[in-house]
Amino acid sequence: MILSDYEIEILGYIAATLTTISFLPQAILTIRTRDTDGLSLSMYSTFTLGVLGWLVYGFFLKNNVIIIANSITLFLATLILSFKLYNTLFKSKK
Amino acid sequence: MILSDYEIEILGYIAATLTTISFLPQAILTIRTRDTDGLSLSMYSTFTLGVLGWLVYGFFLKNNVIIIANSITLFLATLILSFKLYNTLFKSKK
Repeated sequence: MILSDYEIEILGYIAATLTTISFLPQAILTIRTRDTDGLSLSMYSTFTLGVLGWLVYGFFLKNNVIIIANSITLFLATLILSFKLYNTLFKSKK
Repeated sequence: MILSDYEIEILGYIAATLTTISFLPQAILTIRTRDTDGLSLSMYSTFTLGVLGWLVYGFFLKNNVIIIANSITLFLATLILSFKLYNTLFKSKK
């Protein structure tokens, strides 16, 4: 099957929308409740660093799909990681 | 900053390794315990479909980083989704 560059880009945006949507409910719940007890700091740091890496990779490739998808995820992941760091440093565990 | 194509690809592989590593412990735990009570079927289906979309997108772009990263994630996500579907259909909820 041969797709035009435009159709391939649309396919990328559909994929990016699906993976971002699947991340949203968890992100919104964590941001709303500020409850990060269920998150692993090391794993979440790794994830956030990885998403940053994908974003930089997207910039070097000049690939808008990768840039936009990872910008949204990086914004949410950084916010959640900040809560996790704050809770870890300043709140005693229950 | 200007990187060669080879260096950009290495950057992509580092990013892909980080995001895949961050997904692994959860995936291994779910695969080992077969416990999918904490997973949302709709969200996990959306995620798996999105990863499949990224994989197809990677094939059309002929981008090995996207293909390899999403192949690994798709394999794990499909396995977990199968357990979730099996548990949802054949096991009564506690």
